[in-house]
Formats: sequence, structure tokens, C-alpha cells
Amino acid sequence: MSCKHFLMHGRHIPFLLAIQVAFIILFGVFVEYDKEAHSARAFDKDANATTNEGNSLGHYYPMFQDVHVMMFIGFGFLMTFLKKYGYSAVAVNFLIAAIVLQWATLCQGFYHTFDGQKIHITITSLLNADFASATVLISFGAVIGVTTPLQLAVMAVCEIAIFASNEHLGLEVLRISDIGASMLVHVFGAYFGLAVSCVLRRDVTSEKEGASYNSDIFAMIGTIFLWLFWPSFNAGLAEGDAQHRAVINTYYSLAACCVTAFAISSLVSKEHKFDMVHIQNSTLAGGVAIGTAADMMINPFGAMIVGSIAGTVSVLGYRYLTPVINRKFGIHDTCGVHNLHGMPGVIAGIVGAITAAAATQEEYGYSLYRQFSARGPLEGTAEYAELHHHIGHLHPGLGRSASMQGGYQIATLFITLAIAISGGLVTGLILRLPIFGKVPRDHLFDDELSWEVPEEDHHHQGISQVSHHDTSASPMVHHGKAVGDTHI
Amino acid sequence: MSCKHFLMHGRHIPFLLAIQVAFIILFGVFVEYDKEAHSARAFDKDANATTNEGNSLGHYYPMFQDVHVMMFIGFGFLMTFLKKYGYSAVAVNFLIAAIVLQWATLCQGFYHTFDGQKIHITITSLLNADFASATVLISFGAVIGVTTPLQLAVMAVCEIAIFASNEHLGLEVLRISDIGASMLVHVFGAYFGLAVSCVLRRDVTSEKEGASYNSDIFAMIGTIFLWLFWPSFNAGLAEGDAQHRAVINTYYSLAACCVTAFAISSLVSKEHKFDMVHIQNSTLAGGVAIGTAADMMINPFGAMIVGSIAGTVSVLGYRYLTPVINRKFGIHDTCGVHNLHGMPGVIAGIVGAITAAAATQEEYGYSLYRQFSARGPLEGTAEYAELHHHIGHLHPGLGRSASMQGGYQIATLFITLAIAISGGLVTGLILRLPIFGKVPRDHLFDDELSWEVPEEDHHHQGISQVSHHDTSASPMVHHGKAVGDTHI
Amino acid sequence: MSCKHFLMHGRHIPFLLAIQVAFIILFGVFVEYDKEAHSARAFDKDANATTNEGNSLGHYYPMFQDVHVMMFIGFGFLMTFLKKYGYSAVAVNFLIAAIVLQWATLCQGFYHTFDGQKIHITITSLLNADFASATVLISFGAVIGVTTPLQLAVMAVCEIAIFASNEHLGLEVLRISDIGASMLVHVFGAYFGLAVSCVLRRDVTSEKEGASYNSDIFAMIGTIFLWLFWPSFNAGLAEGDAQHRAVINTYYSLAACCVTAFAISSLVSKEHKFDMVHIQNSTLAGGVAIGTAADMMINPFGAMIVGSIAGTVSVLGYRYLTPVINRKFGIHDTCGVHNLHGMPGVIAGIVGAITAAAATQEEYGYSLYRQFSARGPLEGTAEYAELHHHIGHLHPGLGRSASMQGGYQIATLFITLAIAISGGLVTGLILRLPIFGKVPRDHLFDDELSWEVPEEDHHHQGISQVSHHDTSASPMVHHGKAVGDTHI
Repeated sequence: MSCKHFLMHGRHIPFLLAIQVAFIILFGVFVEYDKEAHSARAFDKDANATTNEGNSLGHYYPMFQDVHVMMFIGFGFLMTFLKKYGYSAVAVNFLIAAIVLQWATLCQGFYHTFDGQKIHITITSLLNADFASATVLISFGAVIGVTTPLQLAVMAVCEIAIFASNEHLGLEVLRISDIGASMLVHVFGAYFGLAVSCVLRRDVTSEKEGASYNSDIFAMIGTIFLWLFWPSFNAGLAEGDAQHRAVINTYYSLAACCVTAFAISSLVSKEHKFDMVHIQNSTLAGGVAIGTAADMMINPFGAMIVGSIAGTVSVLGYRYLTPVINRKFGIHDTCGVHNLHGMPGVIAGIVGAITAAAATQEEYGYSLYRQFSARGPLEGTAEYAELHHHIGHLHPGLGRSASMQGGYQIATLFITLAIAISGGLVTGLILRLPIFGKVPRDHLFDDELSWEVPEEDHHHQGISQVSHHDTSASPMVHHGKAVGDTHI
Repeated sequence: MSCKHFLMHGRHIPFLLAIQVAFIILFGVFVEYDKEAHSARAFDKDANATTNEGNSLGHYYPMFQDVHVMMFIGFGFLMTFLKKYGYSAVAVNFLIAAIVLQWATLCQGFYHTFDGQKIHITITSLLNADFASATVLISFGAVIGVTTPLQLAVMAVCEIAIFASNEHLGLEVLRISDIGASMLVHVFGAYFGLAVSCVLRRDVTSEKEGASYNSDIFAMIGTIFLWLFWPSFNAGLAEGDAQHRAVINTYYSLAACCVTAFAISSLVSKEHKFDMVHIQNSTLAGGVAIGTAADMMINPFGAMIVGSIAGTVSVLGYRYLTPVINRKFGIHDTCGVHNLHGMPGVIAGIVGAITAAAATQEEYGYSLYRQFSARGPLEGTAEYAELHHHIGHLHPGLGRSASMQGGYQIATLFITLAIAISGGLVTGLILRLPIFGKVPRDHLFDDELSWEVPEEDHHHQGISQVSHHDTSASPMVHHGKAVGDTHI
Repeated sequence: MSCKHFLMHGRHIPFLLAIQVAFIILFGVFVEYDKEAHSARAFDKDANATTNEGNSLGHYYPMFQDVHVMMFIGFGFLMTFLKKYGYSAVAVNFLIAAIVLQWATLCQGFYHTFDGQKIHITITSLLNADFASATVLISFGAVIGVTTPLQLAVMAVCEIAIFASNEHLGLEVLRISDIGASMLVHVFGAYFGLAVSCVLRRDVTSEKEGASYNSDIFAMIGTIFLWLFWPSFNAGLAEGDAQHRAVINTYYSLAACCVTAFAISSLVSKEHKFDMVHIQNSTLAGGVAIGTAADMMINPFGAMIVGSIAGTVSVLGYRYLTPVINRKFGIHDTCGVHNLHGMPGVIAGIVGAITAAAATQEEYGYSLYRQFSARGPLEGTAEYAELHHHIGHLHPGLGRSASMQGGYQIATLFITLAIAISGGLVTGLILRLPIFGKVPRDHLFDDELSWEVPEEDHHHQGISQVSHHDTSASPMVHHGKAVGDTHI
């Protein structure tokens, strides 16, 4: 427990304490309750927010909690598939997400609700912070097992600042529609993580990078909660009929994706068995791929086509593309985020652009101008006056045509890719600074790096290793040795 | 990977792809968003559905998600109790349910919302599709471990078509009340599955048909989520006070059932210990048994009596009846669905009939005619005119008396039994067609049939087998052999 | 299976059956649906409750279900961390909670909604019963592994009666504010359990009192669901803006607590690794510590300070205080409830008192009198008349000042401590009565006490024991012996 030891293994401690203190100070200076959560101000607009019915909390809360479960149970357990990395998967996921919830409140708040003095928070701030955490957790999937908790915490802080800027650019400057954040969260998170992984580049041929029977079942807890609550992710911030539609489209996209992923997994796997990696991940690709167009009039069968394509692409990616990327480009992708979030996110961006380019007022009615706010007529025009007559609460738009909107959607996809990759490369270089340490070769994909692991488990591993490497030795003697090696 | 191999082991692949394509085409031709989810039409009834408050999504969504969790986490993990069949339990459950969600949307849609041209879908269509999937997942429980994924997928397609017809017969032709679908889902699913199992009849004395310590705890995840969210299952489609009542009755029925099941389990088990099988299953029988009467005025203590009886019957069924059915009738029932869904479902039908036969306008007020729509007076009668004066939105009924309603309820129970058993027998015969294959003798209850199982787990099993059968052999040698046998 | 055997091991059976029968009788005599759940009476106030919109079920249900998940999945799995006690942790938790749901409905009902003839139940009765079950499950955490199911059931019955009285005293007599029940549930449950543990005092140095790799991951399921749904626990019974605030405060308190707990865990643990016990428990302390003040105007940064302090105190408690309490005072605390519920609950009481003592009408607006009902002016005073003019639904208060309210808050903390400790001591003495039996020395922390444990698991344990104690013996022989010892 010497000072040197602290410098070697305890470097994350001052960092974590420092950012937590910084968060508290920044919250103290900049954050306050928005009207609906503020005792005195809730009375402002004739006391509505003081009642359960008049407060928006009730509307957002159920979907917020679903998304919350996705972040901590979904992503956390999805990553427990590694047989010796379960503690880190679920617990470091927990730590990183808890950091991001606070930091994203600040970063997003500055862009969204900052009035020059204060950031105003409501339940939607919490929901947005959870969305933001998805970005980092996706990137986490690309580098899990090859990064220290300190490196991940630093990555989270860098990534969220860049993410929030890109989100602002997409939603408020370019005024694109991406209700399920497939571009702004999934594409961003995946390619950012892959860029970081590319820079960190470890030689990671480790037998520990595999699953055990129990770890695979733990991972299915994550998979299924993600699959179940994805409609809440894609619909959480939509309104009225658009929200209703987003739930329906996501539900059928995921159902079709699941069936397709099983079929294709079986088609391309050894002996036509199913492959757990595909089932754990590719069944979810339909949720990503429908994300951008989830609240558009894509129709249930359209959503099912998108889901089926995503499931197919994702399985093929795991089977054929990931090994190539790993071998040729040296980019390691532990959880295959390129197949679950990267490519399906790009599909989402394209589908969203096409659907947006085909959107007519005939099909959408007046809600066209809510869905694509930039398509509303410019203030002061005759069209604006006429529409305003029909719809009371119309905000002025930019007079974009359908195909212009489609163009902006595609532009945002490419901008997001560019920012994510360059941001990831820079962040990766930062993470390589000696001050942040790195995972020793023999602790890749190994909980022992950060955790005291119960002995009995070593035992099983001990025997297991015998069976692979040294079938002549007596297991008990070897076991004694194995315990000796690792614990003394 | 030869063509012959594909024909042997890959037969489910074209089937899965074909039904997925068929679903997409059928959805394209027949399915569209209902008003509340349709951009342009949401404006029809003065723009209400375009707002969060005016859209029914918010009301149904939380309970829908609870039911969704029950289907995929609840049923999926409940069946992971088999020590070597966890992958299949949770993942094949996932696949089958994803098929059913789509297929049931079509089958139920044709009966419920088809207007000659289109099926109109809303959140309640999704909720109904989830209910339908419960039927298949219950049947799955009867044949788990002895069927291939292809057989299960075929069973699902057949079963849902028959289920939807029976549901239509019960709810819309016979106009009975079964809010928790105890007859239409639980009785149907259980006896359909048992009939299939009867026809498939495999000699299934396998040491693999047992639990391990971890698999039992995984199964408790399923049990507890089912238990927690059962009030949502029974109340999801009820309205106002009836929904409130359905939640309360189910809650107390389940609490009483849980306590009783523990007590009876201990009473009839060896050394008066608790038996995990009972705890995993019989604690849920109260949810089934109160299903039909859940929204009726049965009173909390009535619900608790029903729950206690169901818990008792279910445990006794596991302890004494299942072995007899297996030995005498050759019907294998892997999860004991007869004890969890079959008998408690029959109890539910009887309790529902009695409660319906005792329902008076004094006790129910005007909501009697919402609860039992057939008891409303015939259109044109003086009674109808008078009631219509009091209740604006009264639909004309059939002028049934309380005891007539009770009779119809019982009749539906028997009709459901008859249709389920005969449907199951026919489906079982279909599943025996050579084209659908069958599980090889040595792969009963074994994930190896459909999955690549991680090696280290074999190892444990390898040792374990040694200890049971051959205490003289060196475990390591045996292990080497075991790996050799199964992997090369 | 002799009569003597029944008297030895089956004593809990008649107790469980008797209380279940008693519950049914008491419910039959005393409990009925409240208006909103009563068919005929729902029409009373112009038929509102017969519609989905007019019924309060929709408002409470999502948070109720979150709390329900916390009790059964959260507490149940949190306690599965013991490697040989997983069945008991999750299943006995289940049994005890099912007893409490019914018994608390009666005990709380007599204080809250009894009109001289009947207890009237709604969804809030169910929610309150779930809160009450938390109390017992917290106490369970202090004595898990050293008590029989019968002892726990008896403890539950005693504890709830005392708990409900104390709750009534706090909320209705002393009129304090404790929205997250940090004093009334957490402090009460923790110190009650510790007092029971103190009286039961077992010498519990058992190697079984530890975790395995898988059991630790199972426990994280509990931890994370508790962490996620804690905002629902703290906000479930609040209204409007206060509810909104309670969600926000709890969310940020927990996020800050999580980060701090990781940092401090690493700081004080061997080799600066993280300690799973801290991560599983101390990350939750922020939810407890903000409980009392959750709906007050404490501001997000205030909530984060409280969470950070609680996380720190909790980790330090596990590391330094628990061993001392165990050694010096002979109080065993299996799950460390003193660190998760006890001390953080005391912090909550103090924070609540300070915040209450600082509450002004300027800050709270008129909702001050909803938040702290006793601070409203006395009926008949001029102030009351003026306020009533502004707020229609004002209930008369007691004219308390801010500092008086703070004083009452602190008083309630001390009263709760006194009642919990004395109630726990008496209950502990009752549990020592020979009639209730006790856990044999060799079955402490061992599922074998109450469960038939699958053989193969013995096997692993068998080998494992060999490797620790007797490296010369052949594992297979020893295994045969181990099985022989425990199973024949």
C-alpha cells in the first residue's frame, strides 16, 4: 500500500473524486429545477404543474425508466458475456454511466436549456442524459477488456463533450429528424469507439476473450431487456401520434429482425447451429436501423423490411467483416459494436433520409411541420399565414422541400461519421498518454485487473487450464499451484 | 457443410426466411396504422391524438411493457431451469415469441379490426399479440427439450391460427368475460401443448432433465418477473374501476398463493424442505386462477381464497399428478404446464362462471353492462331505453340473465378444452412428419442440438459424469475423451 | 417422515397455513375496495373513476410496479451474493414479502383508511404495503443465513405491527415529512434487524459466508434494479412538482453516490481494487440518504452532496465499522444493512430536518403547506382565511414555524431509533423461544437447511473443499464421500 503502489494502481481515485467535486460545483452554479419541478414556479401557469395531471412527469416517466433499464441492465449485462470479465462489464458500465448522467446534463443543458444564467432541468433532461450515456456505453463495447477504468472515465468525459456538440449541430442547426438517435447516438458511439480502439491497438489474442455457459445466459438478460424496451428508446421523446407510431414501428422492426437474425445466424454458422454472439447482438439491430425513421410514416411492413435487412447485415458483419477489420486494420471490436450499432446506424440514416425525402403533406397532414420543423414555411410568407390559421402553435420553418430535408439528413450522417472518427482518434491519443496507464498484457479481459475475484472460481479455471494444456498432471496438484501462482 | 448437411440440420432456415417474407408481404397488403398512430388521421377527431394527453398510447404503454417483459424475460428465464438447456430456453423462447408477435397481429387483426380492406393497428394490437404469444410459450413449456426449433416454429404458426379463432368465438360470439385470458390463453396453451406432447411421445428419461444451482437461480428471474407483472397481464385491457380492481385482486391472489405454495411444498416434500420446482411455478398459479374473475366484484378475500386453492392444487399436481400422467398416459410435461396453467386455468374458468352467475346490478351498478356486455337489454326494449337514458354509451346486449352468463362462461371453458386438445393432436401429427425432423435421442434437453456450447462447461459436465458413473477413471482422461466425442 | 421429523423440520408449515387463513378471514371481515375500484361506487362522483382518465390507477401504477420490482428482484437478488445461499436469498425474500404485503395492508389500513367498519383499498394501499415490505426485507439482510424461514416469518409479523404504529406516529401524529421513508422504513428496518441480530447472536465464522463469481453477478441484478427504480421509491407518493423534484433529486444523488462509492472503495481496498461488496451496496446509499428531503427544495447540487457523503460513509462503514461492531458488540450484519440503510437513513433524517428548518414560503410558494402540512395556519386564524382565499383546497395546519418543523423531524428520527431498537430486542427474544427452532451450526449460510440442492453443485463444492483442506486425497473418492455424507 505504498505511495508508489497508489501511483501505479490508484490513479483513477483522484480523477473520480475530482470530477465528482467539479460536477457538484458546476451544478451548484449553473443548474436549477425547471418550472414543473420548482415549488414556487409550478404555480406560474395556473397551478397546473402542482397536480399530477398537469405535470409532464407522468407522461415521460415510464419510458424514461425503460431507457434507464436499457442503459444499466441492458448494456451492463449484454457485456457480461466474457467469462472472466463479468464484474467489470456490469460494474464499470455502471460507473461510467453514472459519470455520464451528470456530465451530459451539463453539456446538453448548455446547448438546450441554458438561458444565460441557468440550465433548467426536468424529466426530459434526465431522459436526454440517459440517451447520451448510450453513446459512451456503445464506445465502451468496442474497447471493453483492453482499457482501464481510468481510461474509460477519461474517454467518457471527452466523448460527451464532442457528442453534445454534434447533437446540437444535427438537431438545432441542421434541423434534422432522428427520434431514435440512430445517427447521433449509435453511429457516433460506434465509430468513436472504433477510432479509439484503432489508436489503442493492443495485440489481444487472449483465450479469456470468450464466453462461458453462465456468462452467455447473463448476457441474454441484457439482450432481452434492450430488445423489450427499445420502443421506449425510439419513442421516448416523440409526441402523440408520432410517439404511437414510433412504438409500433420499432416493435415490428425488432420482431422481424429477431427472426431474420436467427435464420441467417444458422445459415452461416458451423453445422447450421445458432451462434450466441449473433443472437445476443444482431437481434437488436432492427431497433437501431429503424431509429431515425421510427416516427415517420414508414408503415409496419416498411419497418419490418428495415429490421430484416439490419438483422442480416449485422450477422454477416459478425461472421465475415469483423475478423477482416481485426486482421487487416488492427481494429479490435470486443462486442462487435460495428455490427450492432455502426452499420445498422448507417442504415438508419439512409432509411431516414429516404423516408424524409418522400414525406408529403398529404400523408402527414399538418403534423408534417412538427415532424420536420424545417419544412414549415418561413415566417411572414403567405403560406405561413395560411398554415398558422389552421395550426395555432406553428413555429416558423425554413421552407425546405422534401428532398432538401432528405439531403440534410444524409449530410448529418456524414458529418456525424467525420466528427465521431476524428474525435475518437484524438481521444485515443489522449488515452495513450502514460499518465492514464494501460492494461498489462496478462490482464486483458480479466477482472483481476480491478477486482478481488473469489478463490473458488480460480479453482474451476485452474482445472480448466489443466485440461487444455497439461492433461498428464494431477488436477489437484496443479490446482494448488494455480492458486499459489495467482494469490501469493 | 455439404448440401446433405443442410438438409439434415438447416431445414429451419428456409422456413424462417419464408415466413418472415410472408409476414412482410401480408403486412404490406393488409396492415396500416389506426387513426391514433396515423399522422394525417390523428387530426380527424379534433387533433386530440396528436397530443400526448389525447393519445391512448400513454394509458396502455406501461402495462404493455410489463406484459412484454413477462413474455420474453418471464417465460424465457422460467425455462432456463434445465441445467444444459439454458441457451435454448431463453433464446428459442425469444425466436418463437418474435414469430408470434407478427403472426398473431395478422390472425387477431382479421377477427378484431379488419374492415374488409385493412387491419388497423394500435398499441392494443401489440398488447393482444403479446397475450397470444403467451399461449404458444405455455405450450412450449410442455415440449421443451424434446422438440427442434423448426418443430416449435411450425407449432407456433398452427397454434396461433386456432387460438385466434377460439378467442374470437369466446369473446365476440359467445360474449364471455375473460379479462386475464385464463381460459383463452392459459387453458388453451396448456392443453394444446399437452396434446402435442402426447402425440410426439418421446421416451425421455434423461439425466439432463434436471437443474443446476445456477440454472435454478436464473429460473427465479423468470418466476419473479412473471409474479410481479401478472397484475398488468390481468388488467391490461380492462377499464377504469374494473382495471383498478383487476390489479388489486391479482396482487392479493398472488400473495396468498405464494404463501400457500411454500407451505404445501414443504408439507409434501422430502424432509419438509421447500422444492424449487414448486416455488418457481406454483407461486404463480394464483395469477392464472384469478384471471377470468380478476375484474369482477370477487373482493380481495375472495381473490385470496382463489389464490390459496390454486397454489395448493398446483403443488399437489407437481408432486403427485405429473408422475402419474407421465407414467400412465405417456404424456411428458417438461415444465409442468398442467400444474401452472392447465388446472389453475380450469379453476379460473369455474370461478369466473360462478362470479358471473352471481353478478347483480346492485353490486356492479351500471358497469354491469360493460363487464358483461351480453347482459345488457336488447335494443328496442323498454329496459334498453331506460338504461340508455342513464348511460350514454350503452351498447345493446342480448338480455342474458346472470345464470345464463355463468352458463356461457362454463361452456366456453369446455369448448376451449375441446378445441385446444383436438388442435394439439392434429398439430402434433403434423410435427411428426419426417420433413420437420426430430431431436436425436442423445440430444434431448441438450443445447448442443442447436448451439455451439463453450468448452469449459463440458469440462465440468465431464467430471460430473465421471463422478456419477465411473469413479475409477482419471477425470482428465475422461474429459479429453468427452471433448473428443462431442467436438470433432 | 415421522411425526417427530415434522415437529423438528416442519414447524413453519402450520404457522404459514394459519397466518394465511387468518389473513383471509381478516380481509373478509375488514377489507373492501375503495370507491375507485368499486364497481357501483365508482359512479358516485360523476362516473369519473369508471374511465381510464378519471381513475388514479394510471398515475400510480408505473411507479408502483417499479417499487414492486425493487422489493422482489432488487432485495431478492441483492442477497444472492452468498455462494451457497442463493435459493434462500431470492425465495425466502419472496415468501416473507408475500406475507408482508397482506399483513401490512391490514396494519396500515387500520391506521390510514379504516372508517370504523372497513379498510378501503386502492393502488396506494398496495404501494404502501410494498414500502412496508422493504422494512422487513432490510431487517432480513441483517440476519440472513442465521435464521430459519419460520423465525423470519414470525419476525415479519411482529415487525410490521410495530412499524405501522411508528409510521402512524410519524406521519399522522407528529406530521413530519419523509417522502422516501428513509427514517420510517430504512432506519427502522436496519436498527430493528440489528437489534434482532444482537439478541440471536450466533458465532458465525463460516467459510460459506462469502461470494462466488456467479453469485456476485446475480447480486448485481438486485443492485442495479434497486438503483434504477429508487426514484420511484422516493417519489411514488409525492404529487405534481414535488414528485417531479423527488425524481430529479434521487437521480442525481444516486449518480454522485455511485461515482463516490467506486472511488472510496478503491481508496480503502487492497491493491486499490474495487470491492464488490461496496459496489453492490454503497452505490445505493444515496437513494436512502436523500429520501427524506427528496421532494424538498434541496436543489440538484444539494442532492449530489448528500449522495456523495452517503456513498463515502457507507463504504467506510463496510471497511472499518462493520468488523468492529461484529467483534466488539457481537452484532453480526450479513448484508451490512447498517452501512446501506442504517447510517444513510440517519443522514437522511438529519438532512431532512435541516432542509425543513430552512423552508420558506418564498422558496416553496403555496406548496409549502402541502409539503409540510403542519406549517399551515390554524383554522380560524386570519392567516388561514387569507391563504384559503389563494389556495382552495387548503387543510388547516398547526401553525408550526420552520425550525419547529425541523425539530419534529429530528424528534421522529430519535423516536424511530428507539422504537426500532426496543422492538427488535423484544422480537429477538421471541425468536429465541425454542418453539421456533434455530439454524444448526453447520447449516449457517447454507441452502441445504431448507432446500434440496442439485447434486452436481455439491460436486464442485466437494472438489473445492478438497483443494482447500486436503490436497493429497483423490477428488473422486472425496466427492463420493461428500455426497454420501449429505445425501444418505
